[in-house]
Amino acid sequence: MKQSLMVVALLGAIAAGSVHAQTAVQIYGTVDAGLIKRSGQSLNIGKRASNTLGFKGTEELGNGLKALFQLEMRYEPDTGTNEIGANGTQRPLFQGQSRVGLQGDFGMVRIGRGLTPYHETVGAFEPFHASPSPAGFWTDLAVAGYTSQPLDVAGYSNNRFSNAAWYNSPLTNGFQVNAAFATKENGGGPAVIGRGTATAPQYPVGAEASVNPFSITGTYNNGPAAFMAGYERNAIESKVWSIGASFAATPELKLMGLYSKQDQEHNRFANANTNAWVLGANYTMGPGKFLAGYGQKDTDGLQKVKQFSLGYEYSLSKRTYLYVDASRKKGLTTVPSTVNHYDVGVNHSF
Amino acid sequence: MKQSLMVVALLGAIAAGSVHAQTAVQIYGTVDAGLIKRSGQSLNIGKRASNTLGFKGTEELGNGLKALFQLEMRYEPDTGTNEIGANGTQRPLFQGQSRVGLQGDFGMVRIGRGLTPYHETVGAFEPFHASPSPAGFWTDLAVAGYTSQPLDVAGYSNNRFSNAAWYNSPLTNGFQVNAAFATKENGGGPAVIGRGTATAPQYPVGAEASVNPFSITGTYNNGPAAFMAGYERNAIESKVWSIGASFAATPELKLMGLYSKQDQEHNRFANANTNAWVLGANYTMGPGKFLAGYGQKDTDGLQKVKQFSLGYEYSLSKRTYLYVDASRKKGLTTVPSTVNHYDVGVNHSF
Amino acid sequence: MKQSLMVVALLGAIAAGSVHAQTAVQIYGTVDAGLIKRSGQSLNIGKRASNTLGFKGTEELGNGLKALFQLEMRYEPDTGTNEIGANGTQRPLFQGQSRVGLQGDFGMVRIGRGLTPYHETVGAFEPFHASPSPAGFWTDLAVAGYTSQPLDVAGYSNNRFSNAAWYNSPLTNGFQVNAAFATKENGGGPAVIGRGTATAPQYPVGAEASVNPFSITGTYNNGPAAFMAGYERNAIESKVWSIGASFAATPELKLMGLYSKQDQEHNRFANANTNAWVLGANYTMGPGKFLAGYGQKDTDGLQKVKQFSLGYEYSLSKRTYLYVDASRKKGLTTVPSTVNHYDVGVNHSF
Repeated sequence: MKQSLMVVALLGAIAAGSVHAQTAVQIYGTVDAGLIKRSGQSLNIGKRASNTLGFKGTEELGNGLKALFQLEMRYEPDTGTNEIGANGTQRPLFQGQSRVGLQGDFGMVRIGRGLTPYHETVGAFEPFHASPSPAGFWTDLAVAGYTSQPLDVAGYSNNRFSNAAWYNSPLTNGFQVNAAFATKENGGGPAVIGRGTATAPQYPVGAEASVNPFSITGTYNNGPAAFMAGYERNAIESKVWSIGASFAATPELKLMGLYSKQDQEHNRFANANTNAWVLGANYTMGPGKFLAGYGQKDTDGLQKVKQFSLGYEYSLSKRTYLYVDASRKKGLTTVPSTVNHYDVGVNHSF
Repeated sequence: MKQSLMVVALLGAIAAGSVHAQTAVQIYGTVDAGLIKRSGQSLNIGKRASNTLGFKGTEELGNGLKALFQLEMRYEPDTGTNEIGANGTQRPLFQGQSRVGLQGDFGMVRIGRGLTPYHETVGAFEPFHASPSPAGFWTDLAVAGYTSQPLDVAGYSNNRFSNAAWYNSPLTNGFQVNAAFATKENGGGPAVIGRGTATAPQYPVGAEASVNPFSITGTYNNGPAAFMAGYERNAIESKVWSIGASFAATPELKLMGLYSKQDQEHNRFANANTNAWVLGANYTMGPGKFLAGYGQKDTDGLQKVKQFSLGYEYSLSKRTYLYVDASRKKGLTTVPSTVNHYDVGVNHSF
Repeated sequence: MKQSLMVVALLGAIAAGSVHAQTAVQIYGTVDAGLIKRSGQSLNIGKRASNTLGFKGTEELGNGLKALFQLEMRYEPDTGTNEIGANGTQRPLFQGQSRVGLQGDFGMVRIGRGLTPYHETVGAFEPFHASPSPAGFWTDLAVAGYTSQPLDVAGYSNNRFSNAAWYNSPLTNGFQVNAAFATKENGGGPAVIGRGTATAPQYPVGAEASVNPFSITGTYNNGPAAFMAGYERNAIESKVWSIGASFAATPELKLMGLYSKQDQEHNRFANANTNAWVLGANYTMGPGKFLAGYGQKDTDGLQKVKQFSLGYEYSLSKRTYLYVDASRKKGLTTVPSTVNHYDVGVNHSF
């Protein structure tokens, strides 16, 4: 229970009514750190899940209307810095999200920066519950290698929109629609050569998006079964779509699958189509949970990537668990082309 | 109501006395985001007011003495980064302020970094309540284009002192005096050519202030009327002074005016004197408030700048409002010389 | 008392039992700012102690087991930035520490980044209670000039390990053992020429540690007396050890002494051995406390450094004090070789 919820609970019991229409700032977060061993690297200390420190709150405006905000820092627990991108760049202070909005009978509208509906929805149908770790599938095979912000600062994020507005519909008979729409503002990123040349890139430095990026998904939950479909287009007109399903075969066993397709025809001469699929399972046994997944990503004319991952999480409480993972990814265009990844660590939420 | 105030209220009711002399850390802030359309730019998402996340507290020391601190982050909600300066530089983490001090019968003394008394006081006599948005007048016409930190890192701030001490007198018969005094420390900014040359700038890189910057204002509040006078000198010996007045003609209607003059004789061969004035009005109608202002800035020998701005704020609660602005600024030395600015958005405080 | 402790106290009194096994996020910190005058510098505003804003919490897991985390920002109060390293580099957001771990009958295990046991332990036997100010001895003479992170980003920290695991034993009959062990990961620092040449440095850019850095200390507390011994080895195989003792001669008077020796044979052709010692005293008189220390650092073949420091702290409360220091350091290899340091300021904890 978060600090402010404790206060709210107290107020509910003791001083009910006196704080109507007030915001309680909730402080929340996650610290996840462990040992990692990857092929070709020395043993290192790193993370499996994202590390967050967030501040959020809602304000009752009356008539069922609420104002809400959420600011979420990201950091690296092994070095204490802001979250670091693939190229070593320090990401924004509130890399997790920075949004403000209104919620009511009509649904929820938010503005700012955050995960796209596409990436957020896909993450719920992936067996490593949207872990950004290479042990999971979320940031690569589950989305066919697609990137949401190709014109943003290099390394800032692959699955967020800056300068965007979000809409989430109310949940109606198990259906929900989620959408986001971004402006054409350039995010300060490098040039994208695309179908141009090094001297005349398709998107020069400082170029705006050639179309407004957008992202839309629909989900349907019906008892043990859930389904999703999502579509997104980014600033350089790459498109991606996915369909996914999950099914709780027994209370302990959840099965899931995803199929995704990325179309980069607008910014690639070759290798423009990528197909990917992931099959996964979660099996709960007492305080333990097994995670398993297998997937393939096939880009036209390039080597096929195959990934197999196994994980185990042991809960010490509802908010703290230990984990261990083993994963193998083959067919990479990098050297070595096969990478084994092992990790063991602790994840603590507050 | 802030989180810690909730706790304090509870303690007041339930456990009075047991927490005497303790600090309650208050978490507070603002998220302000909306759509902006400016002449010559595509539609973008940005802010109107500053976006803050702050931590502050006071400690009762006995005999009316208090210790106090305030740390205030600034950020961009559309991208999640620290607040960005005009040139794209990420400003300091606690760009809002970072100060510690003591308060007692003598007034308040603080040390650290924050708004200068001059800028803070002027902001209370400006019709867009010190919004840094181009829709308001605060950062340009209300201060005759004056900058408080010319030797600080480029883009860090125009209206703050680093390395300074503040004094605020007690409020006596409606009068209050506010002052700040800064050291000569160089803030890491670029060279200022001034009356020198590119090869021998008046203030080279790493130069200290040639005099100690200081800022002083006096205010007088008497029922519906308020008056101010302020004077400030910066590290390169530019000086500025303003006088202002406001008058609540009716409970709904507040009128205000400002006259400012900047003297840059010490660091300019030409165009050294700038005069500016702003007239404004606020009109409250139910949950709505109209904001209007007109002003001119006249720099010797340069084109005269004229700005007219209209705004409307609709309160959903005491802490959340929607806003819409329209503004035109003419006579700029940039291209285009006339810029229209429109915005619509939401401002939420917590 | 911190905010969340207030809540916990309330809960203890009012709703005991209902929040078992919950984390309360504690917000804590220090703001320390004052005036500093050093030989050869103009008067400036700066700090004496570290400035912190932290978030920490513990979760009861049952059977005496706890999960815990701590995230601690560091900042400069005079400019509002992240803490700045010696070379002007902005240090990591959570420069203070970022750790997660478990505590139980076995002691405490943590993973992440933080002070090494060596530096943390030495700091308790230094008369300026581990102040990083030049008025104290902690960062130089108390540790014979030793640095824990020579391969980290230049300026990030001299007394921390990144990518490390910590173990603290339970306190048994006054004895405690503290240890940390780091991976070989390169922290992104510059090349270290060492026993190589400028073109073939002993540790090139991007080099990993040649051995795993580690740090271990033991302490013994017995009534008025305390003893310590510590040893540490860094990524470039510099070694350091210290022994220290303190004794409360009377309730008001505490005496202390430290002897340290650094061995840089592995990465230096010459001047590889450094000896240092510090003697100190603290004397409490009502709300005031006098601090005094004298020490020498002798590096083979280099000029001997001598430092004498006097300080006085006047407590306005348990959490707020004023301070004044005067210090002289002689025999420096820089110009001037003798530096006087004076400061006066306020330190407020929350």
